[in-house]
Amino acid sequence: MKMTQRANYLRPLPPEVLRALQSFLEEDIRSGDLTTQALGPLDTRATGTVFARSRSIVAGIAEAVAIAEMRGLSHETLAFEGNWVEPGDVVLRLHGAAGTLLTVERVILNIMMRMSGIATKTYRLVERVREIAPHVRVAATRKTTPGFRFFEKSAVVIGGGDPHRYALDDMVLIKNNHIAAVGGISLAVRTAREYVSFSRKVSCEVRGLDEAIEAVEAGADIVLLDNLPPREIERIVETLKDRGLRERVVLEASGGITEENVEEYAVTGVDVISIGSLTHSYVSADFNMRLIF
Amino acid sequence: MKMTQRANYLRPLPPEVLRALQSFLEEDIRSGDLTTQALGPLDTRATGTVFARSRSIVAGIAEAVAIAEMRGLSHETLAFEGNWVEPGDVVLRLHGAAGTLLTVERVILNIMMRMSGIATKTYRLVERVREIAPHVRVAATRKTTPGFRFFEKSAVVIGGGDPHRYALDDMVLIKNNHIAAVGGISLAVRTAREYVSFSRKVSCEVRGLDEAIEAVEAGADIVLLDNLPPREIERIVETLKDRGLRERVVLEASGGITEENVEEYAVTGVDVISIGSLTHSYVSADFNMRLIF
Amino acid sequence: MKMTQRANYLRPLPPEVLRALQSFLEEDIRSGDLTTQALGPLDTRATGTVFARSRSIVAGIAEAVAIAEMRGLSHETLAFEGNWVEPGDVVLRLHGAAGTLLTVERVILNIMMRMSGIATKTYRLVERVREIAPHVRVAATRKTTPGFRFFEKSAVVIGGGDPHRYALDDMVLIKNNHIAAVGGISLAVRTAREYVSFSRKVSCEVRGLDEAIEAVEAGADIVLLDNLPPREIERIVETLKDRGLRERVVLEASGGITEENVEEYAVTGVDVISIGSLTHSYVSADFNMRLIF
Amino acid sequence: MKMTQRANYLRPLPPEVLRALQSFLEEDIRSGDLTTQALGPLDTRATGTVFARSRSIVAGIAEAVAIAEMRGLSHETLAFEGNWVEPGDVVLRLHGAAGTLLTVERVILNIMMRMSGIATKTYRLVERVREIAPHVRVAATRKTTPGFRFFEKSAVVIGGGDPHRYALDDMVLIKNNHIAAVGGISLAVRTAREYVSFSRKVSCEVRGLDEAIEAVEAGADIVLLDNLPPREIERIVETLKDRGLRERVVLEASGGITEENVEEYAVTGVDVISIGSLTHSYVSADFNMRLIF
Amino acid sequence: MKMTQRANYLRPLPPEVLRALQSFLEEDIRSGDLTTQALGPLDTRATGTVFARSRSIVAGIAEAVAIAEMRGLSHETLAFEGNWVEPGDVVLRLHGAAGTLLTVERVILNIMMRMSGIATKTYRLVERVREIAPHVRVAATRKTTPGFRFFEKSAVVIGGGDPHRYALDDMVLIKNNHIAAVGGISLAVRTAREYVSFSRKVSCEVRGLDEAIEAVEAGADIVLLDNLPPREIERIVETLKDRGLRERVVLEASGGITEENVEEYAVTGVDVISIGSLTHSYVSADFNMRLIF
Amino acid sequence: MKMTQRANYLRPLPPEVLRALQSFLEEDIRSGDLTTQALGPLDTRATGTVFARSRSIVAGIAEAVAIAEMRGLSHETLAFEGNWVEPGDVVLRLHGAAGTLLTVERVILNIMMRMSGIATKTYRLVERVREIAPHVRVAATRKTTPGFRFFEKSAVVIGGGDPHRYALDDMVLIKNNHIAAVGGISLAVRTAREYVSFSRKVSCEVRGLDEAIEAVEAGADIVLLDNLPPREIERIVETLKDRGLRERVVLEASGGITEENVEEYAVTGVDVISIGSLTHSYVSADFNMRLIF
Repeated sequence: MKMTQRANYLRPLPPEVLRALQSFLEEDIRSGDLTTQALGPLDTRATGTVFARSRSIVAGIAEAVAIAEMRGLSHETLAFEGNWVEPGDVVLRLHGAAGTLLTVERVILNIMMRMSGIATKTYRLVERVREIAPHVRVAATRKTTPGFRFFEKSAVVIGGGDPHRYALDDMVLIKNNHIAAVGGISLAVRTAREYVSFSRKVSCEVRGLDEAIEAVEAGADIVLLDNLPPREIERIVETLKDRGLRERVVLEASGGITEENVEEYAVTGVDVISIGSLTHSYVSADFNMRLIF
Repeated sequence: MKMTQRANYLRPLPPEVLRALQSFLEEDIRSGDLTTQALGPLDTRATGTVFARSRSIVAGIAEAVAIAEMRGLSHETLAFEGNWVEPGDVVLRLHGAAGTLLTVERVILNIMMRMSGIATKTYRLVERVREIAPHVRVAATRKTTPGFRFFEKSAVVIGGGDPHRYALDDMVLIKNNHIAAVGGISLAVRTAREYVSFSRKVSCEVRGLDEAIEAVEAGADIVLLDNLPPREIERIVETLKDRGLRERVVLEASGGITEENVEEYAVTGVDVISIGSLTHSYVSADFNMRLIF
Repeated sequence: MKMTQRANYLRPLPPEVLRALQSFLEEDIRSGDLTTQALGPLDTRATGTVFARSRSIVAGIAEAVAIAEMRGLSHETLAFEGNWVEPGDVVLRLHGAAGTLLTVERVILNIMMRMSGIATKTYRLVERVREIAPHVRVAATRKTTPGFRFFEKSAVVIGGGDPHRYALDDMVLIKNNHIAAVGGISLAVRTAREYVSFSRKVSCEVRGLDEAIEAVEAGADIVLLDNLPPREIERIVETLKDRGLRERVVLEASGGITEENVEEYAVTGVDVISIGSLTHSYVSADFNMRLIF
Repeated sequence: MKMTQRANYLRPLPPEVLRALQSFLEEDIRSGDLTTQALGPLDTRATGTVFARSRSIVAGIAEAVAIAEMRGLSHETLAFEGNWVEPGDVVLRLHGAAGTLLTVERVILNIMMRMSGIATKTYRLVERVREIAPHVRVAATRKTTPGFRFFEKSAVVIGGGDPHRYALDDMVLIKNNHIAAVGGISLAVRTAREYVSFSRKVSCEVRGLDEAIEAVEAGADIVLLDNLPPREIERIVETLKDRGLRERVVLEASGGITEENVEEYAVTGVDVISIGSLTHSYVSADFNMRLIF
Repeated sequence: MKMTQRANYLRPLPPEVLRALQSFLEEDIRSGDLTTQALGPLDTRATGTVFARSRSIVAGIAEAVAIAEMRGLSHETLAFEGNWVEPGDVVLRLHGAAGTLLTVERVILNIMMRMSGIATKTYRLVERVREIAPHVRVAATRKTTPGFRFFEKSAVVIGGGDPHRYALDDMVLIKNNHIAAVGGISLAVRTAREYVSFSRKVSCEVRGLDEAIEAVEAGADIVLLDNLPPREIERIVETLKDRGLRERVVLEASGGITEENVEEYAVTGVDVISIGSLTHSYVSADFNMRLIF
Repeated sequence: MKMTQRANYLRPLPPEVLRALQSFLEEDIRSGDLTTQALGPLDTRATGTVFARSRSIVAGIAEAVAIAEMRGLSHETLAFEGNWVEPGDVVLRLHGAAGTLLTVERVILNIMMRMSGIATKTYRLVERVREIAPHVRVAATRKTTPGFRFFEKSAVVIGGGDPHRYALDDMVLIKNNHIAAVGGISLAVRTAREYVSFSRKVSCEVRGLDEAIEAVEAGADIVLLDNLPPREIERIVETLKDRGLRERVVLEASGGITEENVEEYAVTGVDVISIGSLTHSYVSADFNMRLIF
């Protein structure tokens, strides 16, 4: 298991996502851009130059380009998603009627600022982890903004992170509440194993060593070590190794992991560190558009 | 112009918003909650207790209740939106099949965490401003997450802020790019004034004193003082007063205003301070759900 | 406040409207144009010439062109929206497969006939008012056909009218029913003023002089004089002038105003006359399409 | 072929129509009813009494009731669709929160006013025709408001008229443009006859006697006598009778038929008279809602 | 009444169908084609060659081409819908990025395989019937896959069959359950006749000779002889002829008709034989796509 | 890996599926059930008894019940999904207005007939395999009817099969076309492994022994043995065992497997046998509804 920064290209966007982008425009424009209407056609040709105002890993260019194409604007991209941009760097130029540029400006910036903010936060965490544990992945969770998950998960990937499961139908993830409802880890994992398609993985949340062993022996593909101190995690990893169970399973740590303590978790021997705040609490990167006539 | 904290009740949600909540569930559940399916019916009756894990102004309860009703869960609310909750405080109890509770948990928490995070940030800024300038409003901008604007604007209101315009068809807001395209502030304001319905306001962005005077004299309802230092804003306010123009217009300051410097702007004499980071960069409040059988 | 007839150009249509036009085609075509299918491909190139059969202010050309583009037809416009056309005048030529022209014909005509009918009625009223009171606006109301509001409000604007508020979230409009529920005009206006964003206007319906004064003093931006005789309206205007309150407020007259009595209202000194029948009762203009092979 | 006034009951509305009603609410409410929000919860229980302000055949009660149910209002109907109501007559009472009543008022009235206006116009024409030609039907056309066809066609039926075809996939209707494209009536009718399902009818527009005979002999189920003077229509009817062709076909007259001249067409011996203005130009009936606390 | 195989061309697809095709892509792709993403851009230009692997009447080419166009692929069609193709025959070539070809492959094949399977089954039945009764039509029913009716009905037409009614609003079809509810065939047919638009046909299901006569005399356009043995049907046809009623009505046989016994029904003298298994039970034709770089 | 028949209960349907069911009703009903309308209210209370007319594994009861609830019908279920029903067995009783029962009848039957047909075919294959190889799973593919995948995959599960991946974003499945594009199995598997989330499986299609070994050594979770004869598959299984690679991987056989030859594949030692015809070619089970007043 190894994480690599992929060469960047313009990600193809699935049809469902194009429809979402269309609805984002509709949310902002509704019955029309009153200002542009009020000031006349504003059909002078102009260039909208999107540039960075803060240092960040840029993301959301594919979305910006798709919106431009929906509204008949031509475009040049001047930066690659996943790379650093510095304040003042131009990342995108859009050409077309001034009125159209002014109408799409906000939606494009709203997407790029959020996606770049997430990509930047992810990249920083990934870098910190990679230096001391090159094979450990930093993963997001399902703590995403409703309706915006695709973009937030994509930003995590652009920042070098692992998107984790996308929705409730991807993977089995047995949490404490499920275990309580079913009556035991072993029973829960075996039941899931039998029911679920061979094409899916089964993950199980555990609260300590004994539960971890029980989950692995019952056939879990992934064991999620939730809210355990690094010391305890290390002990679990060692014990699993001693018992010859380590190779059978992916180990994931989660719960209260931040930029401050991520390194302590990175050296415990787990495969994956998942961090909810990658998508639920971040600082948007700062981008702006300048209009040139 | 005065801002009051309104008594809280369960906000009615418009049909468009109910459809959005439905689509949020679909985004997360898609073809089905695999874990719940894999572990059997899980139709034991249970109670899902939503409680705070951080201090925050709680918001999003109306949305949580609406989702519960869509899925046939009964509910009790134990906190009012817009009030402080402390770690451990229970804000909501949902009753129904364990499987259903586990299926809606994440979407409900994702909404409440974000809305409460925004309400809390807004409240802190509003409080700070109110102490020194009781009539000044703190307003959001259109820098919202695409597809999630309703919820973010509502959270600002719950936190005591002003939602500002909702979309491009609400109000005329003439920015520098528009002025450049049209050829002058006075012409732009007058053109907009004539074109736009009497039911709408016309706002104009200015970069200094002369432009401010020009905008007011041309008939702008609102003058947006963008990226100006507090000292300069003060001078503009004074000059407008001297010329008898102050009463004709609402003055709004924006650009680079943060929790650190908001007080400097609050005392300049403006009516409104608008802050993009209310919705583009905030820390989600921490809520969780505990299942009791 | 002044109303000007704007130079006409091809109005840009927001994405939401393009989706509506698409759904209008779907409503009419459903599983397919049976006649065109039954008679073979009908892919001969032809020209569909849309011409007037009655004198009218033409409107709906932007919509016709958008539909043509959705279905791959090329187009020439021969008239400007907002101008008079005479019987026989060609306003639009569409080029493409005969089958496609026959399939879109009805939807295009249905839109143009209604929009032109409304624009014509509006124009006639606006003209009549302008001659005797050049600064008074003629406004529509929310009495529009459900699902067709955008097109009806646009037609009013094309005819020289004021579209008034678009939907319930645009502006506060306190009606008698609200006042009864809240318990007084002054309380209602002040409550609304405090609650609502600084970016919105507050309008209040009144039934006589005392209420008008109460509304203005409470801070209403607009006072709606509903179902009052012209004589009474005049008296209110005068009294407000005498008290120095006239400049603070936009005065709107409504209720039972028709082509016959509009002039009596125009001279009362109000700023706006709003007329529901602009959109709820009008004669469609007559347009037809001739096919040339 | 005979037209009967059906006993009225609450028409069941198909799911597609319920969705349309939902979207009509969304068009008007959008992000929320600002006035109701601004004035507080307004959750006092109240009764909204919908009453007539003009004499009309009432229609749209099923739609009003469906909207009430969507928003949790209870209801009593006091009139039957298709019956006359007089000014002052109460047709519907809705009970629930004052805020909800105020929010749905406009959409309900907009639907009822239009549907009742159409039903009234239709009824008047049907009555006039029935007195002198009891078996002749008065039919609508596809000249309906885009997005609102279901409601306009339903109103025609409530007024005693024939809705004619609903959309392009219902029936084959060969018009002059089609005949020109195909190269002759006989060929067009025969081609359509062979292609189209046995479950559909084939109608053919003709411009005179010879074409009428050709269409009937080619197997048209319906012959549409378009823009012909009553005298000419009579002659065609007689000739078809003489040749023993009359019984094979339904004869429909259309084009320029109004309330003024409909009787001249009614006595020509045709089966159906179709009139576009039933749906494209009518006066809305006047209804209003009074709130009682 | 005669059934002809029409010259084939690329059927135009109505907007509603294009939206359905879009949703089919979304169903399969959802948040993205993981394999194509995982393996890099895969933007090498390639050709996807769609070829037959079984003998069949090909159908679904219009749909395949529409999907290709939605995703920016160019295309060449090498076969006509409605013609036989042999194993190995290439029917379509698509050109574009390898990744795009791999992403749309499955949806295109899923549509073509089903539509061709239905067209082939229909064609075999039509051929068998035509040899012995050239004017008898083979018709489908409403036993189609929910959401896929347009494509299945179109495939029936491509195979030379009659699509029958499309939906519940097309034609009146009085079944035994309706007759029981209303209280008699004659009453039911007459009631329907009076209520329903002159533009629609009225069909009535009967269980024997007396009912058939009753239905015809009451004015049914179509009489559906359901679940009757060929011998009995013959007797009904003869009796109707003897009574001079045969010409007034279309006779349709249905119920338990298969490839094995269809000929027995074809010679009974009915006009239409309808067969549910055309769309509810068929073998998909086998098509595949080969990628060439 | 073991496959078990799960106890049946009423499957909960996700919101996306409820919307699909709603759209299925809209497809069939459109502007209204003409027959029910034409015959009057038909609001007599009645019972619709859904019964089997062929022996089958019943499926689709959850969908039937959901549709009944959408239309206000009450219901009793008399059979469990996944169990055999015999001709004449009643599986469901619906109670409500006769008109409503007649309106939903066809959609309910269309779903149940298809789902039961697939469940029955699946069950037969599963039974045959289980007797000789109890741990081998029978899996479906993505060869489903567009728009109907959820229901077809669910029917496979009800019949005891494995649904396999749901959509392109579930799992990586590297096919020959991908390998050709990337340049080798080992490179493709490793690239995918690195790129894709740890929560997903990677499957690779191979054409023989060497490729199988290469795929396993590169880290594939699943190896898909496509279009290989049983003898060859056996040899691959043995060789993998000899090399100690068998435990690392799930082996899946596919291509040309039918009811006739499935047993030959079942004994080869693979874990999964996937069969496209489970969903692309099946005989619908026969169900009907009888109305009792």
